[in-house]
Amino acid sequence: MKAARWHAAKDIRVEETEIPTAGQKQVKIEVQFTGICGSDLHEYTHGPMLIPVDKPYSLNGHQGVTTLGHEFSGIVSEVGKGVTNVKVGDRVVVEPLFKNPESPFIANGEYNLSEPLGFVGLTSNGGFAKYTVVEDYMVHKIPDSMSFEQGVQATIAAGSPNVIVVDVADKRLEKATEVGATHVINGKTEDIPAQVKKLTNGGADVYLDAAGVQATYENGLKSLRNGGTAVLVALFGKPVTHDAFDQVVREITIKGIIAYRNIFPQVIALIDSGRMPVEKLVTQKIKLDNIVADGFEALVSNPSQVKILVDING
Amino acid sequence: MKAARWHAAKDIRVEETEIPTAGQKQVKIEVQFTGICGSDLHEYTHGPMLIPVDKPYSLNGHQGVTTLGHEFSGIVSEVGKGVTNVKVGDRVVVEPLFKNPESPFIANGEYNLSEPLGFVGLTSNGGFAKYTVVEDYMVHKIPDSMSFEQGVQATIAAGSPNVIVVDVADKRLEKATEVGATHVINGKTEDIPAQVKKLTNGGADVYLDAAGVQATYENGLKSLRNGGTAVLVALFGKPVTHDAFDQVVREITIKGIIAYRNIFPQVIALIDSGRMPVEKLVTQKIKLDNIVADGFEALVSNPSQVKILVDING
Repeated sequence: MKAARWHAAKDIRVEETEIPTAGQKQVKIEVQFTGICGSDLHEYTHGPMLIPVDKPYSLNGHQGVTTLGHEFSGIVSEVGKGVTNVKVGDRVVVEPLFKNPESPFIANGEYNLSEPLGFVGLTSNGGFAKYTVVEDYMVHKIPDSMSFEQGVQATIAAGSPNVIVVDVADKRLEKATEVGATHVINGKTEDIPAQVKKLTNGGADVYLDAAGVQATYENGLKSLRNGGTAVLVALFGKPVTHDAFDQVVREITIKGIIAYRNIFPQVIALIDSGRMPVEKLVTQKIKLDNIVADGFEALVSNPSQVKILVDING
Repeated sequence: MKAARWHAAKDIRVEETEIPTAGQKQVKIEVQFTGICGSDLHEYTHGPMLIPVDKPYSLNGHQGVTTLGHEFSGIVSEVGKGVTNVKVGDRVVVEPLFKNPESPFIANGEYNLSEPLGFVGLTSNGGFAKYTVVEDYMVHKIPDSMSFEQGVQATIAAGSPNVIVVDVADKRLEKATEVGATHVINGKTEDIPAQVKKLTNGGADVYLDAAGVQATYENGLKSLRNGGTAVLVALFGKPVTHDAFDQVVREITIKGIIAYRNIFPQVIALIDSGRMPVEKLVTQKIKLDNIVADGFEALVSNPSQVKILVDING
């Protein structure tokens, strides 16, 4: 089968690989659509970030060349011994997080903190391929009413009355308005903290940093009200210079978040309810063969792209 | 009267000043004991940090030369018009935080976040003097059973079963053990994160940074368990280099805290109950005349000092 495989930064190849089979407690999926994630882009432009190159990933022995892709939907095509939660033919999405059964975090329900941190499509072969194999605990069934294209993303639908989106591309800001942002700010031409303070009467309660560079970090913190909270969800490529004095005197809280935990079922239900029109975020559907030019390079060079889906059967 | 007044970094003078009088809604206090705080030391070694030198503090017009001292106890000796919460002769301690009545944070009970941030003894004249005047809302009565020396400090007594104290001075670590630390680590000779992880079986739930330099920040974050919380209470003198990538993948939360809020009455009760032996933290009582040599310089050069009290009548 064909798969888009990471060999090194700027070196992703669509090439023939073997079709995998499901081992014990594993599920083989015939992939339908796979989103290109910011983490995939990080691996493409300046990886390896999370791909285990120097030594094997301890939970499965995976190392080196990797089929990327961890945002995908598909149909169960084989189940390994001991799998009881899904059967062949089920329509599913994958929560691509490895769990270390020996981690003390599992017992607390904090499975996304178990070490060593691992993701399908980074520390194992992922969904930019016709077939992939994942652990049974990663698989969530989706309702018949839900299309495979309805990717599992989010934040806006969570219900905040006042959502300000900042970006440097007007096209993306148009999308943001379309899916529910109450205000948008173009960070290239506007003073972000001043604008946010005006719109919020003193500063935002919460800001989410999905870019992870010095400028977003600084502008985000400055846009918060005293006592506000910053949530970092980006994989920062470099350390930032941090004004901890300002954080202390303004009592700012900064939280790091790597991944979802115990939330897939609710998000699936929310999308199915129609209240979260994630399909509007999809700006392009492309073929696996063209993933480098139409996917990775398009995302790097074209700021009007938001979410690109790879149609594995396209 | 004599007062210890900050003129510039490394220039604190004990000199004659006028005795202040209580204005409307103000309370004049005959000071008994005043602790030297880390913030006073910051002003001494590399101030001005919070002292308004370039323009007056907007809530009271104070600017420039400042009588330091914001940790003090005393006896009410005069009350201004409109004061109803205390009377002459009451034994009191002072919560030295200015509140801006127009701040939206006041209505939320978050008065310690109101701007402009101000403290007695930094943005007004403080307690290193025979008399000082404060706003009525800052004053808390103390029980007759409580000595004036029982300074209002704390953290250890709050009840955590496992408190590890890190310092570079063995004398201070002895004090820490005396007042209830379950483990101590000398950061000069030991690998802090490795030791903490060993003692906590994987990492601390919470760490408090009361030093505010790159080394404590880094070692503190590394000592946390995944999902743990850092609490910054130090006035960082310089920006830190921050590994936000590590914060994200380990889901660390970092909170800045500038000051107490709504906690003075409980702390007073706790000390009075005998469960918080804060008096054990006092390593020296000195005279106001000798505050520079026996106080500020001693704290800078002698790592075995913990809390020095100035006996205003000594």
